[in-house]
Amino acid sequence: MTMKLLKGALPPVPGFKAVGISCGIKKDGQKDLALIVSDTPATAAGVFTTNRVQSPSVTWSRNALKSATIRAVLINSGNANACVGPQGMKDCKAIAEGVAKQLGTPPRQILLASTGIIGVPLPAEKITAALPDLTGKLSLKGWKDAADAILTTDLVPKTAAIRFSLGGKKIVMVGMAKGSGMIHPNMATMLAFVHTNAAIDKATLRQALLEANDASFNRITVDGDTSTNDSFLVMANGQAGNKPIRKGSKDYAQFVEALTKVSKDLAFKIVLDGEGATKFITVRITGAKTRKQAHQVATSVATSSLVKTGIFGEDPNWGRILCAVGYAGVPIQPDRIVIALNGATLFKNGMPTRSASMESLRKKMQKKTILIAIDLNSGKETTEVYTCDFSYDYVRINAEYTT
Amino acid sequence: MTMKLLKGALPPVPGFKAVGISCGIKKDGQKDLALIVSDTPATAAGVFTTNRVQSPSVTWSRNALKSATIRAVLINSGNANACVGPQGMKDCKAIAEGVAKQLGTPPRQILLASTGIIGVPLPAEKITAALPDLTGKLSLKGWKDAADAILTTDLVPKTAAIRFSLGGKKIVMVGMAKGSGMIHPNMATMLAFVHTNAAIDKATLRQALLEANDASFNRITVDGDTSTNDSFLVMANGQAGNKPIRKGSKDYAQFVEALTKVSKDLAFKIVLDGEGATKFITVRITGAKTRKQAHQVATSVATSSLVKTGIFGEDPNWGRILCAVGYAGVPIQPDRIVIALNGATLFKNGMPTRSASMESLRKKMQKKTILIAIDLNSGKETTEVYTCDFSYDYVRINAEYTT
Repeated sequence: MTMKLLKGALPPVPGFKAVGISCGIKKDGQKDLALIVSDTPATAAGVFTTNRVQSPSVTWSRNALKSATIRAVLINSGNANACVGPQGMKDCKAIAEGVAKQLGTPPRQILLASTGIIGVPLPAEKITAALPDLTGKLSLKGWKDAADAILTTDLVPKTAAIRFSLGGKKIVMVGMAKGSGMIHPNMATMLAFVHTNAAIDKATLRQALLEANDASFNRITVDGDTSTNDSFLVMANGQAGNKPIRKGSKDYAQFVEALTKVSKDLAFKIVLDGEGATKFITVRITGAKTRKQAHQVATSVATSSLVKTGIFGEDPNWGRILCAVGYAGVPIQPDRIVIALNGATLFKNGMPTRSASMESLRKKMQKKTILIAIDLNSGKETTEVYTCDFSYDYVRINAEYTT
Repeated sequence: MTMKLLKGALPPVPGFKAVGISCGIKKDGQKDLALIVSDTPATAAGVFTTNRVQSPSVTWSRNALKSATIRAVLINSGNANACVGPQGMKDCKAIAEGVAKQLGTPPRQILLASTGIIGVPLPAEKITAALPDLTGKLSLKGWKDAADAILTTDLVPKTAAIRFSLGGKKIVMVGMAKGSGMIHPNMATMLAFVHTNAAIDKATLRQALLEANDASFNRITVDGDTSTNDSFLVMANGQAGNKPIRKGSKDYAQFVEALTKVSKDLAFKIVLDGEGATKFITVRITGAKTRKQAHQVATSVATSSLVKTGIFGEDPNWGRILCAVGYAGVPIQPDRIVIALNGATLFKNGMPTRSASMESLRKKMQKKTILIAIDLNSGKETTEVYTCDFSYDYVRINAEYTT
């Protein structure tokens, strides 16, 4: 039985409540503050941006995850709380203390995440003043509001959910994410949160998170830039009553499958909402000598401005793809490479094939999803990386965005 | 006395003749074939693309440079002679033999360079058929026609010249280049040729070329893509009669200074002609621990799509710059970094400075030349990298270009 993502509204996750409101960080009354709370202490795990410049919110959550259990995650949008000097950490402390007081827990059980403009001090007092209202509105059905409140330049909210059974116990998993620009492997301006009622110990949850992350968020790229604030957090409160999931067990495999499905769905939705994106591009590498080389080649192609503008122009330009393969820094043999675009082989034996007519190729390129398949014919390793095309709107959005 | 680049038309270089004509590779009778010949055997040196996929023209020239001396370089535009299978090298051989026959020299004294579309076999017969006409039109004043004939999507021809004396002998140096898209350090779709009447042995010329290249073409980036055909070639025929230049001598220093000036001027002209470019950006790094780290940080900033679209939008967005510094893969301390845009310090002590008014900043950003100065305050190494902004026109040119 393969697991399938749920359609429609997000289901409740036993023991979790969520909420999203406007506290005045964003203009025009847009939602900008989200809170997700577990009634009981939950295990939690997280991965964060690899950027050397990190938001204090990231530093705070990294430290909080040293606690045995976590009770809640508070997310604000509209302000990244980054590059603001020592005030940033002071604000984190004040906000976490405020949330903790409302919930009757220690502050180190509160995770924080921020997204928005950087270099402007967080209006922390607006957040703390809103906390009674925020916690008062917590509800089993608050997912949608929370998912709305974490967005910035996103065009649509991004959520995913799945249901499965472990030893007869019903497990629910709900995820939400934000991000459209600055999306690049190893975490970008991207926030993602998954909440589940499964019982799983902290170390095993962390392992599952790393596996799911490697197959999802670490494989997407929009513009190659990585941000100061990216976080992917998972909380599991055990209220399903399943036998705690152990590493290497069949239950673990199922849990990882579910977490990967949810993460991948959220990651794809981020790419589809990429700034100015008109197409979803999969770069599939086969026949690589090592996994690392496969990833290097895939990333080189997926981040090439020439490849991405070419696909925006619906041009079956294998030459730009081959070029990007060539400068990936991997020892390749050009004569062995086979390049196909949406199923049509365009390059083989060191030269273009002449099989497909230009007309049929142009038709294939008009599709909204584009598969760039590159066989290096030098080994057995494979990978996939996901990205979007590069359009006028990318330039417009990023040239007009004002600091 | 500092050397200055010459203004106006390119001067003759004693012993060199040049020509540029149309042989029918390009449509509409545009010039597409250039030849530069030294009357006497010249020493020569070259550097080539690091892309693993290389044009046979590059392979041919790399081999030809093993000869003690070189007589000529033939350049065609409109077709890159790349990714065409074994036919590519056969064409090189036929063309070099044709040129050699006209000049009465062995083919291994002929250098070749090609630029244009890839994957389409070179119409070699058009080139060989044009050779008698081509050599017949060689002239001391043919530089301008040659410089025109090597262009592809370039908007303007790119030339530079300098004159200086060594031991009372007059040295002339003339350079030409092409390139606008796919310009990235370590050689991109960029061709550059410098010709001089100086006397300099092959090994010393190669050393001088590497030094000049490192300060010029290896420091420019337009879109981060590197091509299959890039070549930078220098020929020196010794007709000035100067005492041959030896490594480490005062003459050598002067020669390198001149070659660097010419190369840098050509490199800057390539950036200014970058596809869709509206601004020339210098990324200057100071206070780096190592030279390599300085270069890594500079390149990370200079290739960031977010930084480049931001500068197109004339936005003083230090945040995107700091982000790009942060993900350069270099251990930096954010609190020590100082970022200035066209002289205005925007970020210091881990947070934005509030000294400059937004109005005065916006005015500074309206200039055509932008200096991004980043002091890492962690050492003494410095570097500069040059790039252009990222505009609607970049997308237009590269989305509409058809394979």
